[in-house]
Formats: sequence, structure tokens, C-alpha cells
Amino acid sequence: MSKKVIAILRGDYIGPEIMEAGLKVLDAASKDSSFQYETIDYPFGGAAIDQYSEPLPQQTIAGCKKTDAILLSAIGGPKWDTAKKRPEKGLLEIRNALGLFSNIRPTKVDPNLSHFSPVKQEILNETDFVIVRELTSGIYFGTPREQNEEKALDTTTYTAQEVKRILKIGFEMSMHRRKHVTIVDKANVLATSKLWRQVTEEFKKSYPEVTVDYSYVDAAAMKIITQPTAFDVIITANLFGDILSDEASVLTGSLGTIPSMSAGTDGPNLYEPIHGSAPDIAGKGIADPISMIQSIEMMLRESFNETLLADKIAAAVQKTIEDKIITPDLGGTATTQEVTANIVKNLKG
Amino acid sequence: MSKKVIAILRGDYIGPEIMEAGLKVLDAASKDSSFQYETIDYPFGGAAIDQYSEPLPQQTIAGCKKTDAILLSAIGGPKWDTAKKRPEKGLLEIRNALGLFSNIRPTKVDPNLSHFSPVKQEILNETDFVIVRELTSGIYFGTPREQNEEKALDTTTYTAQEVKRILKIGFEMSMHRRKHVTIVDKANVLATSKLWRQVTEEFKKSYPEVTVDYSYVDAAAMKIITQPTAFDVIITANLFGDILSDEASVLTGSLGTIPSMSAGTDGPNLYEPIHGSAPDIAGKGIADPISMIQSIEMMLRESFNETLLADKIAAAVQKTIEDKIITPDLGGTATTQEVTANIVKNLKG
Ligand SMILES: CC(C)[C@H](C(=O)O)[C@@H](O)C(=O)O
Ligand SMILES: CC(C)[C@H](C(=O)O)[C@@H](O)C(=O)O
Repeated sequence: MSKKVIAILRGDYIGPEIMEAGLKVLDAASKDSSFQYETIDYPFGGAAIDQYSEPLPQQTIAGCKKTDAILLSAIGGPKWDTAKKRPEKGLLEIRNALGLFSNIRPTKVDPNLSHFSPVKQEILNETDFVIVRELTSGIYFGTPREQNEEKALDTTTYTAQEVKRILKIGFEMSMHRRKHVTIVDKANVLATSKLWRQVTEEFKKSYPEVTVDYSYVDAAAMKIITQPTAFDVIITANLFGDILSDEASVLTGSLGTIPSMSAGTDGPNLYEPIHGSAPDIAGKGIADPISMIQSIEMMLRESFNETLLADKIAAAVQKTIEDKIITPDLGGTATTQEVTANIVKNLKG
Repeated sequence: MSKKVIAILRGDYIGPEIMEAGLKVLDAASKDSSFQYETIDYPFGGAAIDQYSEPLPQQTIAGCKKTDAILLSAIGGPKWDTAKKRPEKGLLEIRNALGLFSNIRPTKVDPNLSHFSPVKQEILNETDFVIVRELTSGIYFGTPREQNEEKALDTTTYTAQEVKRILKIGFEMSMHRRKHVTIVDKANVLATSKLWRQVTEEFKKSYPEVTVDYSYVDAAAMKIITQPTAFDVIITANLFGDILSDEASVLTGSLGTIPSMSAGTDGPNLYEPIHGSAPDIAGKGIADPISMIQSIEMMLRESFNETLLADKIAAAVQKTIEDKIITPDLGGTATTQEVTANIVKNLKG
């Protein structure tokens, strides 16, 4: 098997700390396997602004395009709040430059961590759904976008083609799950939502086994809290996905453990924790590395088809959590290093 | 004191049932007071479609404009799902026609009902905040709005003037509360949000006592669940307000009790329950009338300055809830009529 190339964007504040932890686990897990890889660092986010006055330098785009997968750690923070171009801008640009039109976020409640959820256990039950968010269109990229002192304007656009390709991702995913798709929109108001519904009505004919329903975004925002087990795969537009996936993430009670994947048609997928760069705990050695480690697990599974390796990491993480070797965000007292070392140890067990 | 005129839009499904309950309480509460009023019914929503093929007939707009306040009960339902113009369209039009640019939604956790909340008690504590939603601009009304088979487009617009007038409502409200305003936006992406921030930075200078902070809508969607006590007054754009106010409403555990107010510069305010027309329980006599009764309480307070009357109704409702004379949505077995009769009885006590 040829050597895989993984781009590493280390991030800001706690970013590099959890990236290092993740790479240790990847190294240990793959040691005695046939999976071979090399990593290449590229500048990105705040770190890239410091060095190149630009959150997404050309070399990073060009370099990433040639890799097999991208690992990105949390970026941004107060240091660049007044920067002309902020780190987050780089995030929008890399999605666009690499054609990463889908963002996948699992919301799965872990019984070992669900006591940290703000939501009651009897509501959570076995909550396990995925939000498939369209990532390179909608109001994030629509033009015109204008602003002066007196007025401002944003434009939301979708083409049938853009809707179809994100539906494809979500419907395919549902076929390996409970075959239930919920389209979240605001079709009682928005023209773009009406297009989504029209395209879905046609598209779903190719998936007769899949149950499809529609929910307005306001109703979905309620149901995610009151009845999260009602969802399997949610497919939605960029802005709604941004809001709902963050809302959903708090159900788990363990933000510091959740990975995500962004994917396009071809080219490398991008894997990253869903949380931010946590400036308040940076440098203290207590950041939760599990989100990064699970992002790596997701990469092995989705980009490299390394199911056994991924399963091994998943089991090792699970055991570490069960043994309560966990960082303060999960109510533990372990450091980033201790959690990482324990997971590495469990890989061998 | 001159007689006040109140427009009554009875709504669909459970709409008329809870309107009748509300008007009984208003009648009983005002009987021995100096508050004099008459009501005039106007066709609206599904009922108006049935009669006039139009959810908001001209006569309703013209009539409402001449009144001192409008009471609206829940509208819409499956009967009109395939109507050319759906009942909800009437809702958008009446807001626009009457210039009701602000929507006020209290989220106040009642200790007697909070056990119904999906969120844990230790998170809820004394949650008490208000969402001030801009209601007649943004993506709901921006043009162009276009759709064909291949693509669709929506436009979000805001003028500095529109932002200022909604800020005024929210800041004034905060002065009677904890003097804390949170502007929710997506200023890391949207031009309209950047305008909101610019206008706020200037506007807040007139309210030096008010603490102002900003939150991205995705972060706010999390914080409403994880730390709802952090909010006092949220001011936000039309679409964000739609999503967040529905999300927030479930915290109370008692959707069937929450009122709302929509207001403009002059002309009558509109008061309505926040919930829908609940077709599944229509005609069974078990709809919770408290949302409508509290909408009337809000009307007495805000439109007519009848604080004593409003307080009297509030106390009567509170006693009924404490005595557990409550409908099934709140875990009780009482009917709409029994709850209403009990509240009327408590008015005298
Ligand atoms: C940083 C921001 C522009 C970004 C988004 O809104 O997409 C973030 O919230 C996310 O969800 O990845
Ligand atoms: C029915 C719908 C158009 C409406 C809205 O989105 O404003 C409703 O959700 C509301 O909040 O009153």
C-alpha cells in the first residue's frame, strides 16, 4: 500500500496541544499495521497571520490539494480580534478552495458522559444522529454582499445541483443507519428552501427505502432539545447547519470529544474538532485531546478505509473514558498528556 | 376613560377554544374596574381562507388599524396545507401591513412548571430573559426573492434605521430589567450583522448603564441551553429571532403558557400565544388556555397600562397552577373550561 500524505494544520491556542496528542495516538496505533503515512505541516489561521499576514496562504491551499487528508485543529482567538483578515476567514476560504461542500457532525450521546449534558437523561436516551450541513453555498458565499453606513445586504443562493450533491451525501449516509432523513428548512418563507424541497421530492425517488420528512428550522431547534431521538440524518443549508449543529453538540455534554468531517467530490477530506481554540486554558496542559483523536479515527475510517485501526482507537478512547482518565471538562483531573498516554496504552491492551 | 377597542382574530383548530377562554377571563377581570372595552371579530388565517380565499382580507387590515390592540390566537393547520396562499402568509402580511417591527418573547422559568423542562433544574435556576426579535425586515422581506427549477435566491437587507428602532425597544426594556443586552448575530460572516454591530456601537452610547455584549448565533444557540441565566435581553434579526425564540421557549417546559407581543411605532400592538394551532387536540376541550390568558395580561400591561388588572390576572393564573388545576400538556387532567373557571374564581379571591 502506498504511503498516505496527511496535511497538518496545527491551529491556535490549545490547537497545537491537542494536535500533538492526536498524532501520538495515530503513530502508536499504526505502528504495527500496514497503514503508512507521512505528515506535512502547513501554516493556517492565527499562526499564519502572524507569519504571513494571511490566514490561508497560497502555499497551504496548493499543498493541501496534493494530500490525501487534512487534519485541522481549533483556530482563532483574541490575539487576532482586530486583524484585518481574521483566522475564521481562512476557514471559509479553505472550504471554498478545496470544494468541501459537506460538513458531517455526529451527535451521539455516550452513556459514560451523558451526566454532563444540560438535558435530562430520559430525554437523551440513546440519541444518535448526524447533521449533514451544506458548507460552500447559501448565505455564506452568495453575492452581492454589501455594506455601508446606512444599509447592508446579504444574498442566499442555491442551485439544484448544489442541493442534489449534499442530498446524495446525506441519503447515502442514512442507508448505513436508520434510513431516516429530515430536511430542515424554512420553506414557509424562503425561496431557497422551496427549491430544496422540490429537489428533494424528485431526489428521494431513488431511495425508496428512506423515510423523508421536513421540518422548519424553528421547529427543529425545539425538537433537538425535546426529542433528539427523533432524528437520524438531518440535511440542511449552510446557515441552519451552523446553528443546529452547535445546538445539538451540547446535548452530548462533552464538546471536547466531538469530531467532524468536511468533504467534497474529490480531493482530500478535512477532519477537525468542533470546538474552538479555548484561549482560557491554552498552555495549561489540560485541553481534552479526545475531539482530535476521534477526528483522526474518523479520518482513518472515512478517507483510508482503515476500519480496524479506527475501531482500535475508538475502543481505546472508550476504555480511557470508562476508567475516568479524563480532563477537567469531563469532570476529571487528568492532563492532556495523561489522557493521551492512557489511550496509547489501551491501544496495546 | 374612553372605551378601548380590541380586534379579535380567533384562529384555527384550538385557536377559537383558547380565545374564548381568554375573553372570559378578561371579561371577569375587568367587570368591577374602570377598564372598558369592546371587541370586534375579524377574519384571519385558515378561517379567512375558507370564507374569502385569502388569509388576510383587506377588511381585516383596515379594521385592525382602527383598534387599540389585537388579540390573535393560533392559526394554520393541515386543512390548508395545499392552499395557494397558506394561513402563515397572513401572519407575515399582517406584521408588515401594521408595521409590527418588534416581537417580544419572555422566557421565564416558573418553578411550579420547570420539572417539565427537558433541561436540568440546576441549569435553569431562575432563568428569566426576553428575546426582542426584529419582525418586518431581514430575509423575511428582502428582495429580490426568486426561484425556478434550477436555482433560487433570497435577500437579507437591513437599514441602520431598522436596526436602531429595534435596538431602542430592547435597550428600553433592559432599563427596567437587569440592564444587560446581548446582540446575537453572525458578524463573522454577514454584512448585515456587521451593520448591526456598527449601529449598536454608536447607539449604546446613549445607554451608559447598559452592559452590551455580542454573541454569534451558533454560540448563542448553545448558551441558551447550557447557561440560560446568562441572558437578560437578547436583540436579534428576524430569522435568528425566529429560531432562538422557539429554542428558548422549550426551556420553560410549558409552551402552552407563553404569550408574546408584536409592536410598531404607533398603531395597535398584537398579542398572541407562541404555540401553534395543535390540530391533534382541537375540539377535545383540553387545550391549555394560559398562553392566551397571559397574552391578554400582557396586553393590559403594555397597551393599556392597566397594571393592577394585569397583576390580578397574573396572580389568579399562578394560583391555578399552584393548585394543579392544569391541562394535560402540564401533566394535569383539567379541561380548558375547568382551568378557565378556576382562574376566574381566583380573580375574586
Ligand atoms: C467561524 C465560523 C465562520 C464558522 C461557520 O460559521 O461556519 C464556524 O462557526 C463553524 O461552524 O465552523
Ligand atoms: C409561520 C412562520 C412564517 C412564522 C415566522 O417564521 O415568523 C412563525 O414561525 C413565527 O415565529 O411566528
